[in-house]
Amino acid sequence: MKSHSILAVGSLAFDSIETPAGKAQSVLGGSANYFSVAASFYSPVQIVGIVGDDFPRPHLELLEKRKIDTSGVKTVPGKTFHWVGSYDKNLNEAKTLSTFLNVFEHFDPMLSEDQRKATYLFLGNIDPELQQKVMNQVKDPELIACDSMNFWITGKPEELKKTLKRVDILSINEGEAYLLSGQKNIIKAVDKIQAMGPSVVIVKRGEYGAILFTGKNIFLAPAFPVETVVDPTGAGDSFAGAFMGYLAEAQVRRSLAKQDPKKWDDVLRRAVLAGCVMASFTVEDFSMHRLLKLNHKELVARQNALMKMIEV
Amino acid sequence: MKSHSILAVGSLAFDSIETPAGKAQSVLGGSANYFSVAASFYSPVQIVGIVGDDFPRPHLELLEKRKIDTSGVKTVPGKTFHWVGSYDKNLNEAKTLSTFLNVFEHFDPMLSEDQRKATYLFLGNIDPELQQKVMNQVKDPELIACDSMNFWITGKPEELKKTLKRVDILSINEGEAYLLSGQKNIIKAVDKIQAMGPSVVIVKRGEYGAILFTGKNIFLAPAFPVETVVDPTGAGDSFAGAFMGYLAEAQVRRSLAKQDPKKWDDVLRRAVLAGCVMASFTVEDFSMHRLLKLNHKELVARQNALMKMIEV
Repeated sequence: MKSHSILAVGSLAFDSIETPAGKAQSVLGGSANYFSVAASFYSPVQIVGIVGDDFPRPHLELLEKRKIDTSGVKTVPGKTFHWVGSYDKNLNEAKTLSTFLNVFEHFDPMLSEDQRKATYLFLGNIDPELQQKVMNQVKDPELIACDSMNFWITGKPEELKKTLKRVDILSINEGEAYLLSGQKNIIKAVDKIQAMGPSVVIVKRGEYGAILFTGKNIFLAPAFPVETVVDPTGAGDSFAGAFMGYLAEAQVRRSLAKQDPKKWDDVLRRAVLAGCVMASFTVEDFSMHRLLKLNHKELVARQNALMKMIEV
Repeated sequence: MKSHSILAVGSLAFDSIETPAGKAQSVLGGSANYFSVAASFYSPVQIVGIVGDDFPRPHLELLEKRKIDTSGVKTVPGKTFHWVGSYDKNLNEAKTLSTFLNVFEHFDPMLSEDQRKATYLFLGNIDPELQQKVMNQVKDPELIACDSMNFWITGKPEELKKTLKRVDILSINEGEAYLLSGQKNIIKAVDKIQAMGPSVVIVKRGEYGAILFTGKNIFLAPAFPVETVVDPTGAGDSFAGAFMGYLAEAQVRRSLAKQDPKKWDDVLRRAVLAGCVMASFTVEDFSMHRLLKLNHKELVARQNALMKMIEV
């Protein structure tokens, strides 16, 4: 495994989704799934997760063809995690109808010797205790990013705070940033969150893009405007995948923040734009359908188009 | 009056507003008021409007001190237009509680010889029949921009379409763009709106900024993030004022679109950013309190700060 490989821990799941554009029943989803496919455009990825014996083997093979190491995906007897959700006209917010944790309930990530050497670590929005367990195993990561969600912010706030103390970058939805900080203004909210640990905070705002806070510096990144939004599921995870992939490809480490703060901020800005572009593909179809069809030429074309849309 | 003077027609009003930050009773507002104060940082402005004999003369004097020609403001017996509204947590959308048109109901803009020579024309969100009446009087404007609102989109759609056929630029809220076009996606919505007339459409998205469509070109402009939002009233009008003021100061005319499309797009982008910056000051206090205290140094500092927040 090359030195710029990413280790990502998160869910592999079946999603049943209803959006204004249609329905999808038991399609492939989960944060590690979206993250790794997006990251694979930039960098090798290893994923750590758990699936039931109903999870299609061909899907894992498909991930493997994309530089994604799935040896950390444990298959156990039982059913795979299943999320049932819907979106109304406001496509920025998912409504969870049911969550069947199934085998995910007993997920206990144990890393191999090889995985413990990961340079880049991404902690999907799983139980913060498990996030810490993963961090305890990875020996000397150069950069750690994590995500979280309402469920853990309200359910395990103290454990989440322990996680946050140890990460470099937090990627979080706008509403979750307010919930986590107890603030109603985004500048004040991020001030509070940075004081909890991560010096870099990315606030995801759905169709309105994202804000990157690098210490006191702010970068306002727009979403790429697409003509057809079919399903926003996985947008945030694929955003994080492309973001982290971009940083891994550029071999960016946390030490850069002190060595060359300007370069650190610059590369984070470009990584955020890579995330925005990837997310814009994800939402164009259900599941990973669009990402799995995406080619390098299309990716570059949209990156260039986005650059033109922010140029002054 | 200099050749880059703007003629703006719109309302002068009293506003009674409740926001999560507090209340303001019968404070000065109205689109022409916000517009002209914002534009006055860049260019001379003439306003055309109507007020009742309850409107404070010192306020008009204050506008006059700011290069704003108020000779087109007619004072008639009766009460000034009064808007009563509130904002809940979602500060992006005003809820109208009452509208007392009062003397505004009989507004019939008649321009002086001098006003008919205006180079830049801004039509606030008044009755589209009145917007046309103003256009009929201005002899040879070099650039016409207009605003509209739900009330006219649903109430006088045919008249509004006649207005739109004759304007170069439409500035409109996101929700209103959907209502006007019958589309749910912003790209598709603006396609339809451009087919109605204006080749330049600015979609205002509140705290998420604005999108500029110059023909097929898109510019994604973020709002400047402020720490304290007191009252969003007038943000859109002061956005338009700074936008138009910027164009007037640069002596930009519609002919530039054909002569030098790149320069036309560039200057519109910068004008939109000027609008975003001005709006960010407006929302920091009730009424025009913040704008009337604003100085050039603060304005330039925030413009520079916003440029840094979009730099890649």
